[in-house]
Amino acid sequence: MLRKFLALKILFRKEKDFLKSLREILGFYPRNLYFYKIAFTHRSASFIINNRRVNNERLEFLGDSILDAVISDFLYLKYPDSKEGFLTEMRSKIVNGEKLKELARLTKLNKFIVQKGNTQKGFTKIHEDAFEALIGAVYLDQGYYKTYKFVKTKILEEFIDFEDLEDLNINYKSQLIEWAQKNKKPVSFKSKTDPDATKCFSSEVVFDNQTIGIGRGSSKKEAEQNAAKEAIGYLLHSF
Amino acid sequence: MLRKFLALKILFRKEKDFLKSLREILGFYPRNLYFYKIAFTHRSASFIINNRRVNNERLEFLGDSILDAVISDFLYLKYPDSKEGFLTEMRSKIVNGEKLKELARLTKLNKFIVQKGNTQKGFTKIHEDAFEALIGAVYLDQGYYKTYKFVKTKILEEFIDFEDLEDLNINYKSQLIEWAQKNKKPVSFKSKTDPDATKCFSSEVVFDNQTIGIGRGSSKKEAEQNAAKEAIGYLLHSF
Repeated sequence: MLRKFLALKILFRKEKDFLKSLREILGFYPRNLYFYKIAFTHRSASFIINNRRVNNERLEFLGDSILDAVISDFLYLKYPDSKEGFLTEMRSKIVNGEKLKELARLTKLNKFIVQKGNTQKGFTKIHEDAFEALIGAVYLDQGYYKTYKFVKTKILEEFIDFEDLEDLNINYKSQLIEWAQKNKKPVSFKSKTDPDATKCFSSEVVFDNQTIGIGRGSSKKEAEQNAAKEAIGYLLHSF
Repeated sequence: MLRKFLALKILFRKEKDFLKSLREILGFYPRNLYFYKIAFTHRSASFIINNRRVNNERLEFLGDSILDAVISDFLYLKYPDSKEGFLTEMRSKIVNGEKLKELARLTKLNKFIVQKGNTQKGFTKIHEDAFEALIGAVYLDQGYYKTYKFVKTKILEEFIDFEDLEDLNINYKSQLIEWAQKNKKPVSFKSKTDPDATKCFSSEVVFDNQTIGIGRGSSKKEAEQNAAKEAIGYLLHSF
């Protein structure tokens, strides 16, 4: 009896610690801890409830979309004068690649992640996935607007320097050349100044004797970047 | 004075008709007509307000994300036992390709679209974009949960046959072969039965002497589909 009581006490203390730590990350006390437990359970540590194998993959699917929506709304309001191309690029810079891993690291959620087998060091895809699953958990636990507030105040405004992010250039030309070398495909740039306009350059990307991207700009570099961006879009959708 | 009064009367009647037609599509009266006017304004018919060029491109950016989030939540609840792979595929089947154009057609929003220049016949990208922009307008006008309800009851439950959609197979093998022919690239399939397991087939996609996709399945066809799917993923991310 006493042992059972002690075991329960330890269990409750563990729950309480988990709740307190979550409170620090989220800025509020969760209503339903169950969602958060799932969010931090990697596939390798799946558990069974009501004959269902449970892990964070479904929550990651949900959280990924919710995060995108929240960030889109945030950017839409933050940049009332910017075009949709800029908004799309800013969103990509936040949710793609290294930034999301960095956010997962900064929110310090790694200590909660439950996984089995080889634990890789560093912040990997596992942390990124858990971060997205956490957004899904907040959404199910607290609804859309609390999730919006959480992402806005605790993630975007706290960890992202938007001026830095605006300046961060994605180098399309080098991406394209890298791809062409890797795939041994002949890709070339043809650039010229436009005789009809002052300070207007244009650039074409040629591939298999076909122009697959045209860009204009106030410098050769800018024109090439725009042409390379269009060419990458073409190659991505060419099948 | 009378002419001004008549002009105003016509304007009000037009507004009233627009409001009534929107009520039919949406199932509720909009609060702020301005959002909906923007949603139906194609870039070619942009107008200027407070020195800003206004059209539906920014709303399309927003609506696209909101639609994704709402559909993800809907699918998450509708299929509590399905894995995230199935959910992702179902979402793609709804928001990618022809389905979205079909939804734009079924909601009969084409009559509202304002565009200048060549008006192409049929339901094109312009209608798809306006449909996404409409979701953005509903979100700004009514908030997330009303948008959820609108998409669920007036779009998904009204126009989508989910059993049909589940059965709809995306043919990865033919997609891959089509791409290879178009790009004159040698892609081949190597399939074999697995000697260690009963009824287990495996298939490899070979490209430039390199295996770029491996798939398994209980039939040769299933194994090839899985291998082609992986190969497409590789090719899409190979630069």
